[in-house]
Amino acid sequence: MRPFLVIKACQAVGGKVEDAVPAASAIELLHSFTLIHDDIMDNDLLRRGVPTVHTLWGVPMAILAGDLLFAESLHVLLSGNGYPERLRRSAEILTRSTIVLSEGQYMDMSFEFRADVSEEEYLDMVYRKTGALFQAAGEMGGIMGGGDERSVELLGTYGRNMGIGFQIFDDYLGMTSSENILGKSVGNDIREGKKTLIVIRAMQTPARDHLLDILGKRDAPDLEIASLLELMKEHGVLDYVFSKAKNYVDKARTAIAELPQSPTRATLLELADYAISREK
Amino acid sequence: MRPFLVIKACQAVGGKVEDAVPAASAIELLHSFTLIHDDIMDNDLLRRGVPTVHTLWGVPMAILAGDLLFAESLHVLLSGNGYPERLRRSAEILTRSTIVLSEGQYMDMSFEFRADVSEEEYLDMVYRKTGALFQAAGEMGGIMGGGDERSVELLGTYGRNMGIGFQIFDDYLGMTSSENILGKSVGNDIREGKKTLIVIRAMQTPARDHLLDILGKRDAPDLEIASLLELMKEHGVLDYVFSKAKNYVDKARTAIAELPQSPTRATLLELADYAISREK
Repeated sequence: MRPFLVIKACQAVGGKVEDAVPAASAIELLHSFTLIHDDIMDNDLLRRGVPTVHTLWGVPMAILAGDLLFAESLHVLLSGNGYPERLRRSAEILTRSTIVLSEGQYMDMSFEFRADVSEEEYLDMVYRKTGALFQAAGEMGGIMGGGDERSVELLGTYGRNMGIGFQIFDDYLGMTSSENILGKSVGNDIREGKKTLIVIRAMQTPARDHLLDILGKRDAPDLEIASLLELMKEHGVLDYVFSKAKNYVDKARTAIAELPQSPTRATLLELADYAISREK
Repeated sequence: MRPFLVIKACQAVGGKVEDAVPAASAIELLHSFTLIHDDIMDNDLLRRGVPTVHTLWGVPMAILAGDLLFAESLHVLLSGNGYPERLRRSAEILTRSTIVLSEGQYMDMSFEFRADVSEEEYLDMVYRKTGALFQAAGEMGGIMGGGDERSVELLGTYGRNMGIGFQIFDDYLGMTSSENILGKSVGNDIREGKKTLIVIRAMQTPARDHLLDILGKRDAPDLEIASLLELMKEHGVLDYVFSKAKNYVDKARTAIAELPQSPTRATLLELADYAISREK
């Protein structure tokens, strides 16, 4: 979705697809680098059902592969075809978002050892880990397409809010979708003890006791997860989380609505809806 | 030495110290990032006698600290004061050298499992692991100072050859200096089984058998190292390695001699001499 957003943001301000290619390539390479390193840090053995890089090649080679992708990401952008100043500004934004991303990963890692993560802290972490790079995608696309300051800002606001909504909806899906759509067990986040918004909200309802019984229990049976899900529905946890995701996507839509009408703007509005209606 | 080279290269083409600051800061941050990640990959517990980052904070936090420094490095450069096109070109060169550096680290890691590393392969590895970043330092300084293409090229040639000579001399020092100057035991590279130019050259002399007896033996006694050192001297290994280092430094001097005479040029000539005359 990130390179797609770069290209569409570029077109939304009147740029051509080829103007966006260096930035679109860079953001996908950068995203890949963060996935490889995050998988080492989180000690994840599988991603989307296939072995992670460090599982196959060992930690040293996976660190190096990530570093190389990071360097290639910036190099492909800085040596790309395009106005030099647009390339520089895009690369400045991309590195700035990587700093924010590192802070988000630090927060995420530190949450693992805490029982008292607040909704505010969670949303700040999601902004850093997901929103910042989507924001960069919107801004880079706008800059590469030659958009004015206001358009670039709107595209960044769109990206940031859409990204946050996307991530909250991802947590929601992990609890409400089905195993054959997700490619992993429903409720895996609960079994892994992740502090998602669902968990944080449920802790404030009578579902708390049942949740604490199984949070972080790798072998929690499906039946326990299913009964927790019922309790969560009953106490409005799922509705609350979905409305939060929708809230962010609405902000994204409002930002983009300020741009001149065009087929690209319509696509970006559709993309925002997709972020909270997709099945996986 | 790297930021110093950036500043001096900038001055050598008529630039001011402050013109070089974003690039000088960036190269030091980038160098620090590579040290942190290399220490994880090589599983080194100490660097210059103090515990490495991953020893103190664990592997996940050390990976993240390195990633953050890499991002900060590029960000400080791209958002620096200066002509945007000079900043872009410098960042392009810095990311290019990081790609080459990653390749060098891969070669270094793969050498550990090979007994037949050739002198040519070793020198290629040293170019990538050390020469490339010194080359970038020279080029970035020249660009930030507004030097013409030929001057930038000469400063890069200077940096590359000086860096390679510096690294070869470093290996030489590890065998010929003394423990209280080095801060580590003489011959540690031999004990760790490193394929330095000293080892590669000694393998082609009658010192080979004695070398093979202790190469990679962590507990090889000082007496064994001392007698190997005598054998190496006798068969001209140390003279050969020193003359190789000097050869590269001479190339560096030749490149810089083409620049107009100035106090800065004199400093760069001195720096080249220092690279192969320092005590540690």
